[in-house]
Amino acid sequence: MINVGIVGGSGYTGGELLRLLSNHSEAKAVLVTSRKLAGKPVSSVHPHVKGVYSMNFESPSAKEIADRCDFVFTAVPHGTAMDWVPDLLKAGTRVIDLSSDYRLSVDVFERTYGIKHRAPLDAVFGLTELHPEVAAANVVGNPGCYPTGATLAVAPLAKAGLVDRVIFDSKSGISGAGVEPTETSHYPNMAENVIPYRLTNHRHVPEIKQELNRLSPGIKINFTPHVFPSVRGILTTAHVFANEDAIERIQDRTSIGELYTNFYRNSHFIRMSDSMPKLSSVRGSNFCDIYFEPEKGGDRLVVISAIDNLVKGASGQAIQNMNLMAGLDERNGLWFPGLAP
Amino acid sequence: MINVGIVGGSGYTGGELLRLLSNHSEAKAVLVTSRKLAGKPVSSVHPHVKGVYSMNFESPSAKEIADRCDFVFTAVPHGTAMDWVPDLLKAGTRVIDLSSDYRLSVDVFERTYGIKHRAPLDAVFGLTELHPEVAAANVVGNPGCYPTGATLAVAPLAKAGLVDRVIFDSKSGISGAGVEPTETSHYPNMAENVIPYRLTNHRHVPEIKQELNRLSPGIKINFTPHVFPSVRGILTTAHVFANEDAIERIQDRTSIGELYTNFYRNSHFIRMSDSMPKLSSVRGSNFCDIYFEPEKGGDRLVVISAIDNLVKGASGQAIQNMNLMAGLDERNGLWFPGLAP
Amino acid sequence: MINVGIVGGSGYTGGELLRLLSNHSEAKAVLVTSRKLAGKPVSSVHPHVKGVYSMNFESPSAKEIADRCDFVFTAVPHGTAMDWVPDLLKAGTRVIDLSSDYRLSVDVFERTYGIKHRAPLDAVFGLTELHPEVAAANVVGNPGCYPTGATLAVAPLAKAGLVDRVIFDSKSGISGAGVEPTETSHYPNMAENVIPYRLTNHRHVPEIKQELNRLSPGIKINFTPHVFPSVRGILTTAHVFANEDAIERIQDRTSIGELYTNFYRNSHFIRMSDSMPKLSSVRGSNFCDIYFEPEKGGDRLVVISAIDNLVKGASGQAIQNMNLMAGLDERNGLWFPGLAP
Amino acid sequence: MINVGIVGGSGYTGGELLRLLSNHSEAKAVLVTSRKLAGKPVSSVHPHVKGVYSMNFESPSAKEIADRCDFVFTAVPHGTAMDWVPDLLKAGTRVIDLSSDYRLSVDVFERTYGIKHRAPLDAVFGLTELHPEVAAANVVGNPGCYPTGATLAVAPLAKAGLVDRVIFDSKSGISGAGVEPTETSHYPNMAENVIPYRLTNHRHVPEIKQELNRLSPGIKINFTPHVFPSVRGILTTAHVFANEDAIERIQDRTSIGELYTNFYRNSHFIRMSDSMPKLSSVRGSNFCDIYFEPEKGGDRLVVISAIDNLVKGASGQAIQNMNLMAGLDERNGLWFPGLAP
Repeated sequence: MINVGIVGGSGYTGGELLRLLSNHSEAKAVLVTSRKLAGKPVSSVHPHVKGVYSMNFESPSAKEIADRCDFVFTAVPHGTAMDWVPDLLKAGTRVIDLSSDYRLSVDVFERTYGIKHRAPLDAVFGLTELHPEVAAANVVGNPGCYPTGATLAVAPLAKAGLVDRVIFDSKSGISGAGVEPTETSHYPNMAENVIPYRLTNHRHVPEIKQELNRLSPGIKINFTPHVFPSVRGILTTAHVFANEDAIERIQDRTSIGELYTNFYRNSHFIRMSDSMPKLSSVRGSNFCDIYFEPEKGGDRLVVISAIDNLVKGASGQAIQNMNLMAGLDERNGLWFPGLAP
Repeated sequence: MINVGIVGGSGYTGGELLRLLSNHSEAKAVLVTSRKLAGKPVSSVHPHVKGVYSMNFESPSAKEIADRCDFVFTAVPHGTAMDWVPDLLKAGTRVIDLSSDYRLSVDVFERTYGIKHRAPLDAVFGLTELHPEVAAANVVGNPGCYPTGATLAVAPLAKAGLVDRVIFDSKSGISGAGVEPTETSHYPNMAENVIPYRLTNHRHVPEIKQELNRLSPGIKINFTPHVFPSVRGILTTAHVFANEDAIERIQDRTSIGELYTNFYRNSHFIRMSDSMPKLSSVRGSNFCDIYFEPEKGGDRLVVISAIDNLVKGASGQAIQNMNLMAGLDERNGLWFPGLAP
Repeated sequence: MINVGIVGGSGYTGGELLRLLSNHSEAKAVLVTSRKLAGKPVSSVHPHVKGVYSMNFESPSAKEIADRCDFVFTAVPHGTAMDWVPDLLKAGTRVIDLSSDYRLSVDVFERTYGIKHRAPLDAVFGLTELHPEVAAANVVGNPGCYPTGATLAVAPLAKAGLVDRVIFDSKSGISGAGVEPTETSHYPNMAENVIPYRLTNHRHVPEIKQELNRLSPGIKINFTPHVFPSVRGILTTAHVFANEDAIERIQDRTSIGELYTNFYRNSHFIRMSDSMPKLSSVRGSNFCDIYFEPEKGGDRLVVISAIDNLVKGASGQAIQNMNLMAGLDERNGLWFPGLAP
Repeated sequence: MINVGIVGGSGYTGGELLRLLSNHSEAKAVLVTSRKLAGKPVSSVHPHVKGVYSMNFESPSAKEIADRCDFVFTAVPHGTAMDWVPDLLKAGTRVIDLSSDYRLSVDVFERTYGIKHRAPLDAVFGLTELHPEVAAANVVGNPGCYPTGATLAVAPLAKAGLVDRVIFDSKSGISGAGVEPTETSHYPNMAENVIPYRLTNHRHVPEIKQELNRLSPGIKINFTPHVFPSVRGILTTAHVFANEDAIERIQDRTSIGELYTNFYRNSHFIRMSDSMPKLSSVRGSNFCDIYFEPEKGGDRLVVISAIDNLVKGASGQAIQNMNLMAGLDERNGLWFPGLAP
């Protein structure tokens, strides 16, 4: 049995890790930290796990955590993870970091987040479908929620060199903003609204650029996120514009379909849909559903992807990473349908 | 033209007063106060009024307010209104207070709110359908949102002496909790939930008891409120249990229907429904829709009422009070359908 | 491995059985029937199970179903189940019926549903917490969603003889009304509304009466259901009025708490909450969370219960029944937290 | 007083016309038709207007309608309006058609809707901000909801010749799909989802192309609509890509702001926002709120517009057209803030 620790377990991703690990046949959560809540039952902030978990929050050192855990998920804010990860690694655990501290090159990170990186490490970007090398990694930077949905939607087209430009117009459930009440998350503000934000400069853009440019240097990328009245889910509408010499190619549904199927032939969690993907089909699950349609007589291919931002976009993907790092089937603990309706 | 002032205009009831007064043919808002926001445009916190109102928030004295206004709505928290109302009256305006400071007798107020009343006054309870004497009042205590829906649902039955006990099970939109984000109003907590609170001792109970016992001393009253995923609206389910000698009577739909129609024959805003009332039918409007059904062979009559908590339950009723106090048609500024769908 | 069949698998309860069985270590769905959809993949109407299940809907005879299955769930409309269950039993399977055909005595069923019962059987009412005898049953009538939440909320008080009357005011997510679009389920009608229906004569009342009167003959019961803007969940507000000699007793929180704890000491899925139960804590799970509060100085105890109508109120409870009938741990396939947030 | 008739008044736009006309000082609804519902009170399908309107639905001939009405709104399906409009005009009324029959040139109409146009007329496209010539028209084709939000967002940029391509990613409340329940509008399908549809070939595209190409021939236009969990509102995210020689220009917020302000200097219902537009600010009102932001160092300008699809996107705009045709202030009956929160 793999012993798992969760550093920073009072938020939504911590709760999700607990929920998902309760299903895992080879791993179990043995330790959940929270400085603020040390001594209180985890069910005091996660009432849904009552009866399933009886542990209390703790506040141990990195050394003690490493003594008790084989794998550690760091679910703390960006800028804080870098204070934990190196010590945890040194003390002998392997780490999946859910913050943004280990997703980008140091210079891009520092430019994007406006802070100095105090502890750079050679981490793997944990989008397992594109990075099989996570299997051998000791530290993985778990991708952001938007970059997961956006990159998976377009990666096969990028790899095939068909893409000139993509405009990602993403719609996220409000849980992505965390557990703390804000003006945006105030029910009377969010209900019956859809709210665009950071129209042109969201911090997740560099992750998307990094991944798609790796597959096809020079792709032009634009991204605008929205929150809409939903707790979970990210629906990404990718407006893909073809390279001049690929305009005819993208009109061929069969060929494009095969391109996707082939690219994802070993990816259990990618489902090519034959109808419009629904967030309810992936809700609570680790699936990413993808659909596409060419604009007749035009240069645009519209690709839709649907994920659960807290699962494939965070905690589920983190466990998928752990499974690969531990040499397990990537589906362990994650192989169940979405919660529909 | 009646000049109207709003003391404490940064919250939802302040915004509603502005919205409704923009429709009024004989009154207009000339002054909106907010200590915190003085100098800023009212549209900075109420973007929906942009273009219709161009005024700034101000922070004048009671004296200055009275000089400029014929009527003042005090929309400040309970315990604060009592610091404004006497000075405003002395300076010569008439006041409709939307807080709870002038709804209850002093001893009941102090017991309910746990604070000393610093400025008792002889105010009228502004449920106009039951209190025509508001027409002559200088100060009116505008009723709470729950008591409005609850009292109107049952008043005709109480007046007729048919009622032994009522259990009010009320469901409110979350706007009733105000503009400040809280854990309850956090979208991921409120969506797809319905949340009971203060199961047995909500502060609005004494208002309901005061009004129904005035009509029929000795009625037993229980009340439990809930918030559900809606911005606006209060749906009250009144489980009415008949007096022993009225058990047969409540089975007679026609007779009970006449009792309601007769009781409310002069009340423009009470609509007896022949199908289930919908919050969308009253949304944004001052209507209270009422429906009832006896339990066949039993002693229970279920009465449903639907209001918009911010209109008939607050700002609309306040303007209705002003209309009567000013000798106008009670419908002025308020005579439009709900926003359905 | 137990082979499971689902008769009538195109609705929500069919989808839920598939979802939950994918987690079960000793049982698996081998057959899903639908006359209308025979030959189509189950994922065509349940896109969330794509990848996890690849089977097609079938339309076999009861005999063939019995040949291939150890247990059968009948998830067909009331009045139709009675055409399947006897044949399935005769052919040698054990049956959990999710319709209302086998929950009530024949005379009560016929009076309630207005149809003749063509195939009465000696079935057990499958509320496992009150009916351990399901373990030995060949056919179980799986309880209705409302009766599950209502009965569990009050059973310990009823058993202890404390209750004079209960008014159940229940709030259900709209999934309880099924997959077919209706005027009520039309988004513009349901959103921002809460809709009472069948105010006094819902068909689930006889089940509640049957169960509570079994525990304490003579309890008076009233019930009014509502739908509110949520996909899943039933929140039941039980306004419990004490017998005259129990009025003092219900004021004692500790004693009442012990009464519940003791009554449910072997019931894994009942969680006594120390704060207000939330539908999100039970969403997608088989838990029933319960909380209570006495009205100070009064005769009322308010009890709140929260369940997922499609799980503990339907498919989860059905699997719990199967587990007990098969001699397994009742938690198999069901032991995971709710999907919060 | 202008007498107004509504042909086809049982749907959402009919209900909105009634709601808005109840506020109008110079016009009133005197006649509402519905073949199916003739003889029934309009409040039977529009319970929100009960008390305000007491008329019944009627089913008169075009001749009789024209005899009783100065203006007629045709709110019938496309393909049906063309059977009414010519006769109404001939009989002497003026007509605002809310269907799509009179928005496009005949050839584009026939290609888009796949039906033959049986009664072409010389109508004006009723987007009043761009078509002051409606004032003199006898028949106006009231624009589609999506084209209204999309065109208004980008018209000033197009007029100035700055635009190479626009990708419109629009998000609509589900009321746009009408009163009839469908699988998409089924609450369990719509809630917690956002659903793209007709990804590349929505029927509103030709209207957008017609209007923007009129201002600037050759603009490339792509459009993808979504429905999200809201009753009302259309939020349009316009990803505008500048012409090569305008790339620098679009970076200048002040200059672009002036361009908008100048273009809309006589348009009362266009509000340039200094923060993100909210659907709640325009809910129930005729306003269109607009905001923009250039992508630093890029060729993209993101423009956001917010309208109420049933008001500025349908019935409100129709009344605005009537006001201009009748020589009234365009604000009559429409000059009130949105329903926020």
